[in-house]
Amino acid sequence: MTTDLATRPHPHHTAGTPTAPPRPVRVGILGAGEQSTAHLLPALLRLPDARITVLADPVTARRDRLAERLGVPVRLNNVAEVVASGQVDCIVAACPPQAHEQIAAAAIEAGVPVFVEKPPAVSTAALTELAAAAGTAGVLTGVGMNFRWAAPIHRLRQELTDPPHGTSSMISVRHVASKPTASMWDLPLWRTFLLAQAIHPIDLLLTLAGSPVVDIQPACRLAGSGIWLGLQLQHANDAISTLVCGNQAPRFEHRVEVTTTAGITATLNDLAELNIAGVNADHTGPGQRGTSSRWRPSPLDVGYDRTGFGGELAAFCAAVATGNQFTPSLADLVPTYRIMDQLCPTGGTR
Amino acid sequence: MTTDLATRPHPHHTAGTPTAPPRPVRVGILGAGEQSTAHLLPALLRLPDARITVLADPVTARRDRLAERLGVPVRLNNVAEVVASGQVDCIVAACPPQAHEQIAAAAIEAGVPVFVEKPPAVSTAALTELAAAAGTAGVLTGVGMNFRWAAPIHRLRQELTDPPHGTSSMISVRHVASKPTASMWDLPLWRTFLLAQAIHPIDLLLTLAGSPVVDIQPACRLAGSGIWLGLQLQHANDAISTLVCGNQAPRFEHRVEVTTTAGITATLNDLAELNIAGVNADHTGPGQRGTSSRWRPSPLDVGYDRTGFGGELAAFCAAVATGNQFTPSLADLVPTYRIMDQLCPTGGTR
Amino acid sequence: MTTDLATRPHPHHTAGTPTAPPRPVRVGILGAGEQSTAHLLPALLRLPDARITVLADPVTARRDRLAERLGVPVRLNNVAEVVASGQVDCIVAACPPQAHEQIAAAAIEAGVPVFVEKPPAVSTAALTELAAAAGTAGVLTGVGMNFRWAAPIHRLRQELTDPPHGTSSMISVRHVASKPTASMWDLPLWRTFLLAQAIHPIDLLLTLAGSPVVDIQPACRLAGSGIWLGLQLQHANDAISTLVCGNQAPRFEHRVEVTTTAGITATLNDLAELNIAGVNADHTGPGQRGTSSRWRPSPLDVGYDRTGFGGELAAFCAAVATGNQFTPSLADLVPTYRIMDQLCPTGGTR
Amino acid sequence: MTTDLATRPHPHHTAGTPTAPPRPVRVGILGAGEQSTAHLLPALLRLPDARITVLADPVTARRDRLAERLGVPVRLNNVAEVVASGQVDCIVAACPPQAHEQIAAAAIEAGVPVFVEKPPAVSTAALTELAAAAGTAGVLTGVGMNFRWAAPIHRLRQELTDPPHGTSSMISVRHVASKPTASMWDLPLWRTFLLAQAIHPIDLLLTLAGSPVVDIQPACRLAGSGIWLGLQLQHANDAISTLVCGNQAPRFEHRVEVTTTAGITATLNDLAELNIAGVNADHTGPGQRGTSSRWRPSPLDVGYDRTGFGGELAAFCAAVATGNQFTPSLADLVPTYRIMDQLCPTGGTR
Repeated sequence: MTTDLATRPHPHHTAGTPTAPPRPVRVGILGAGEQSTAHLLPALLRLPDARITVLADPVTARRDRLAERLGVPVRLNNVAEVVASGQVDCIVAACPPQAHEQIAAAAIEAGVPVFVEKPPAVSTAALTELAAAAGTAGVLTGVGMNFRWAAPIHRLRQELTDPPHGTSSMISVRHVASKPTASMWDLPLWRTFLLAQAIHPIDLLLTLAGSPVVDIQPACRLAGSGIWLGLQLQHANDAISTLVCGNQAPRFEHRVEVTTTAGITATLNDLAELNIAGVNADHTGPGQRGTSSRWRPSPLDVGYDRTGFGGELAAFCAAVATGNQFTPSLADLVPTYRIMDQLCPTGGTR
Repeated sequence: MTTDLATRPHPHHTAGTPTAPPRPVRVGILGAGEQSTAHLLPALLRLPDARITVLADPVTARRDRLAERLGVPVRLNNVAEVVASGQVDCIVAACPPQAHEQIAAAAIEAGVPVFVEKPPAVSTAALTELAAAAGTAGVLTGVGMNFRWAAPIHRLRQELTDPPHGTSSMISVRHVASKPTASMWDLPLWRTFLLAQAIHPIDLLLTLAGSPVVDIQPACRLAGSGIWLGLQLQHANDAISTLVCGNQAPRFEHRVEVTTTAGITATLNDLAELNIAGVNADHTGPGQRGTSSRWRPSPLDVGYDRTGFGGELAAFCAAVATGNQFTPSLADLVPTYRIMDQLCPTGGTR
Repeated sequence: MTTDLATRPHPHHTAGTPTAPPRPVRVGILGAGEQSTAHLLPALLRLPDARITVLADPVTARRDRLAERLGVPVRLNNVAEVVASGQVDCIVAACPPQAHEQIAAAAIEAGVPVFVEKPPAVSTAALTELAAAAGTAGVLTGVGMNFRWAAPIHRLRQELTDPPHGTSSMISVRHVASKPTASMWDLPLWRTFLLAQAIHPIDLLLTLAGSPVVDIQPACRLAGSGIWLGLQLQHANDAISTLVCGNQAPRFEHRVEVTTTAGITATLNDLAELNIAGVNADHTGPGQRGTSSRWRPSPLDVGYDRTGFGGELAAFCAAVATGNQFTPSLADLVPTYRIMDQLCPTGGTR
Repeated sequence: MTTDLATRPHPHHTAGTPTAPPRPVRVGILGAGEQSTAHLLPALLRLPDARITVLADPVTARRDRLAERLGVPVRLNNVAEVVASGQVDCIVAACPPQAHEQIAAAAIEAGVPVFVEKPPAVSTAALTELAAAAGTAGVLTGVGMNFRWAAPIHRLRQELTDPPHGTSSMISVRHVASKPTASMWDLPLWRTFLLAQAIHPIDLLLTLAGSPVVDIQPACRLAGSGIWLGLQLQHANDAISTLVCGNQAPRFEHRVEVTTTAGITATLNDLAELNIAGVNADHTGPGQRGTSSRWRPSPLDVGYDRTGFGGELAAFCAAVATGNQFTPSLADLVPTYRIMDQLCPTGGTR
C-alpha cells in the first residue's frame, strides 16, 4: 500500500518527457502537534517518493525540535510563508478546523494541492465554499479520513464488491471512544464531538453504502459531558445503515459490519480481525456451516497501512504527482457534514 | 442453573406440611417435533425435580418413538386429553402459534400452569386476550424466550446492574440468520419472520433496556425472500436501543452490546464470548487501557444453560412448585408484539 | 453425528432377515455418579436407536432417583445382575478404574459388549490382560476417550488428511486443568493425575500422530499437590509431538495444534475455535497472507457432539448393532498406558 | 515506551553540568537494507532524543536514496569511516552476521557503543570472543532481540512477576514461519534457520525462564527445504520450557504461554492478544470460572512498541546517554548460542 508514485506526466511541473519519473513530491507540513508527530509525519517518511521539505508552525520551539529530529530543512511560521517559499509541491495540514479553513483557502488561491486532516472546516457553509473555490480553481484537495483508507476496510470492501456477492443490505458501524468529553476549538461540546469523533463513522457509513440517503433517523443524547447517539440511514438502493457512537467507552472500540443480499456477512473488529462468512460454496455447504474466512495482521505489523494514514498520504502524493483525483476531496465531505447538521441532542439533558 | 426446586408449599397440591419437599413437578409435553426433541425435552430431563409424565402429539408415530426412547409413560393426542388425564402439574408446548393459542386457552380454563414456546400467538389481539384470561383466572403462564434466560446474557446483566456501573445508554442487538425464507404457519413471509426470528431480539432489547419505549424508528425491507430490518428505539430513561436483523446470513450470528453512562462496554458474541471493559479501576488506569474481563464457556460445556432452554424450564417448573411468578408470562410479551405491529416493509420490493 | 444405527444384521440377536432394522440397542448403565449423570446418560438419551433399559449402582438411593427421573425401568446393583438380567445388549460403565477392570472382565466372560469410561484400568498389566481376554472371546470393547470423538477434532483431522495437505510434522497438545490435586481411587496423586487427566492428551497425541513412537523425552514435576509435565515424542514418520500438561491452571484449557509438511497450520482452541491456514491457494497467494479458514460452533450449540460423548456412544451402539469394530478398544489403549509408565516426577520435589 | 533519555551525566561527552540535558544521541546506521528501512530507522525517528547523523552502506545507490528521503546528512561506506567521522555517539547495524562481527569488533576497538541486529555472529566462538573484547574494553554492546522488548511480552512478564503469582512452571513458545527455506549468508540452510529464526524463541525461552538450563531435549528435522524442531528444556528451578519451531507455516505465527505454580495461565497470541487467567480472586471464585483478563492493542496502534523495535532502540540510546547497561549485550547471547549448538537434524532426511 506504500504506493510508488506513478510515472505519468506531472501537471504541476514542467516535466521533461512523459516517461520520465517524477521528482519526489515535496511536502510542506503545517502543524507540529500530536497528530503530525504521531501519525502523519511517520507515515510520510515511509513513502519512497515523497520528501518533507518544509515544516511550519507558529509555535517555533516544538516546530524546531521536530524539524531537527526528522531532518526537515526549512522551518516557517504559516501557510503564506509556505506558499511563498517555492519549496513545496503540496501542503499537508494538521491543525484546528478554523486553521484548516484558512490554510485550504490560501492554498487554493495559490494553486497548491492541499490535504487537511479532519475536520476540514467548522461548518457546512465554510466547507461548501472552500469546495466550490477548489472546483473553480481546479486545485487538488484532500481530507484526512483515514478509515476510508485503512487496509482492512479496503480489504473488506474489495471482498464484498465482487459481482456474486450481491449488494450491501445492512451496514453497521460502532465507534465508541473515551473522548472528547470537553469543548475544543472554541466550539460547544456537542459540535466538538461531531467534528472530532462522529465525523469518522458517518463518513464511513456513506462511503460503504455508496448510495444516496433518503431518510435519516437520529437519536442523540447529551448528559453532562456524556454523549451517545444512534443513527439509522435509509439509502436509495434499499440499504439500511446504522451507527452507534459515543464518548463513554473506556477506550476506542471500532467495528464495521456488512450483510449483503447474496448472503454474505463481514465483520471487522478494531481494524484487526476480519471475518467473512458465506462468500462461496466453501462456507455454505452442509459441511461448512460455521466456517468463515478470517484475516489477521502479521504479529510484526507496523506502520500505517492498517490505520489508513499511510494509504491516504501515499494516494494523495500520487495524485499530486500524476494530476489524478483523490478521494475524499473537500467536496466529498459535504454529504457527511449535512448529516451532522441534522444531529441534535434531543434528550439526555434532564 | 439447573435450579433445584424450592421447598415452599406447593399451591397446586394439597401439600402435607410447609417443610415437606415438593413431589417432582409432573410435566405434560405437547408437541413431539424438532423443538421438543432438540431443546425442550433434553433440558427438562436434566432437572432433578421435574418428571415428564405425558407426551401428546396428534402425529402418533413420532410421538410414540420419542416417548419410548425417553421412557415417557403416558401418550395422548391433544391438550384436552392432557388436562383431563390428571397426570400433569403443568403443560409445556412447542407447536405452531395457532396451536399455542388453543393450548394456552385450554390450560388457562382448566387452571393448569402452561408454558408455550415462542411465538405464543399469531396476533397481538389473541395474545392480549389470553393474557387477560390468565390474569383473571390466576393461572401461571410462561413463554419460551430462551435468550432472556441464556446464562451469558444473565451474566452480562448481572455485571452491569451493580450500582457503580451507571445505567445502560446504548443497547445493540444483532440477530441475523439464514431463515425463515419461506412462509410458515399459513402466515405471510414477513409475519413469519417476525414471529419466528425478530421476536427474539425485540424482546431482548426491551428486557435489557428496562424502560418504556417513547419513540420507534423502524427501517424494514422485503425483497423476494430476503428480509432485513433496522430498528432504533428511544426509551424513557434516555437509553437508545438498536437492532439489526435479517434472514440473509449464511448462519445464525448473534451479538448483544451495551454501553453504560459510567463508561462500561459489554459485548457478548454468539452466546460464547463476553468481554466487559471499564468495569473498575483495573480497566481504566493508565496501565490498563485495552484490558477487559473476558468470559468463555468451558471446553466441555454441554447442556442447555448457555442457550437458556435449561434456565427457563427450571425456573418455570420452580414457579409451578412454589406458586411464584415466572417471567416472561403471556402478558410480558405484549409490548414485544406491539413493537412488531409497527414493523412493515417499506422498501426492498422494487 | 447422532448416527442412526445401520441396518445390517445384528450379530448378537437372532435377527429375522438381513434387511430388517435392528431393534433399538438396549444399554445397561453401571454407575449413577457425576460422569453418568452429566455426560453419558444425556448423550445416550439423544440417540434415536438406543434405549437405556437398566441402571445399576450399589448406592441405591442415587440410582433410584436417577432412574426415576429418566424413566429407566430396571434397577440393579452390579455387573453380575446386569449380565444375568437378559435386558441389555451392551454395558456402559462409568466407575472407578478398579471397578472398570471387574466390569470389563465380567462382560467379556459373558460375551456382552462393554464400554468403560477412562481410565479403563489401573495398570498396564491389567489392561493388557483384559484386552487379551476380549480378543480371545471376540467381545466388542470400547473406552471412553471422548476427545478422539469430539466433532471439532474430527473436523481438524478430516481437513488435514486430504492428500494435498502433506503429513503432520508437528503436533502439540496443551491440556491444563485445576485438578486432580488430591489422591483418588486409592492411588498416589501422581498416578491419579496420569489416569484422570494426562491419559487424555497422551492418547490424543498418539491418535493424531498415527505413527509409532521411536523416542520419548519426558520432563515431569510433582511439588506438593502441584503437577506439571512436558512430553516430547519422536515418531517413526519423523513427526514430533509435544505435550504440556498440569493441574495448576485456574480452569481446564485445551489446545490442539498441527503443522504439516505441506505448509498447513491448524489450531483448535478449547474445542470451540478451529483455524486452518494455508490449506489452499486462497490462503497462500500474495493477497491472502494472514487469512485462515475459521470454524465456530453455532451460538445455539447444545448436546454432546462437540465434546465427543455423543459421538463415541453413537459409534459404540452402532458397533453393537452391526458387529463392526469400535475404536478405541481396550487394546487400543495399551500404547497410551505404556507412555504413562515412562512418566515419573524427576524434579519438583525439592 | 518511547523513553525520553534520562538526564544523568553523559559519560561519552564532556558534559557541562550533571543537570544539563544530554544533547541528542547521535546514531550512525550501518546497512540500508530491508531491516533498516522497515524497522530500525522508523523506530529511531520516533525517539525524541536520538538523531540519525550518519548512514553507511557500500551499496551507495540505496544508501543515498534512503538518506535523502530521511534527511540524513552524512553518507559513508563502512564502519571504519563511521568511527573516524566523529559524527556518532553510537552505531546501529543491520547487516549479515559476518559483517556484524566486523562492525562490532571495530566499534569495540574504537570504544564506540554498538548495537547489532540479530544474528550478532555466525558462531559461538566468534560471539564469545567479541563479548570478551567488549568486556575488557568496557564498551556498551547490544543485540537486537526485539521480542525481549515487545510491549505485550513485557506486559506479560510484569503481570507474572508480582509476588503472589508464584514462579513459572511451564513456558511454551510457538514460533513458526514460512522462511527461510534457502541458504543465506553463505551458511547451510540448517544454520541459516537457526540464526535467522530459531534464535528468537530460544532466546525468549531463556529470558522468560530466568533459570539455568540443566537438561536439553531436542528433536530436529530437516527434509528438503522443510525444517521443524521441538525443544524441551529443564531448568534449575524445576521450570520446564518447550519450543515448537519451523519454516513450514503459511505465515509467521507466534505464541508465548506461561503457567505458574500459583495457578496462573498467561497466553499471548501473535503479540496482539494477551489473556491472563487466575490472577486473583476475581478469576478463581465460583462465579468467575472461565474469566480472564484480556489485553488488546488499540485499533489505531502504530509504531514499534508492540514489536519491540522501538523499545530496544530507546533503551539502547538511553544507555548510551547515561552510561547504564543494556540487555541483551553480546555476552547475554552466549547461552542462546550454546543451545543452538546442540540442535542438529537427526531425522527428516530420509
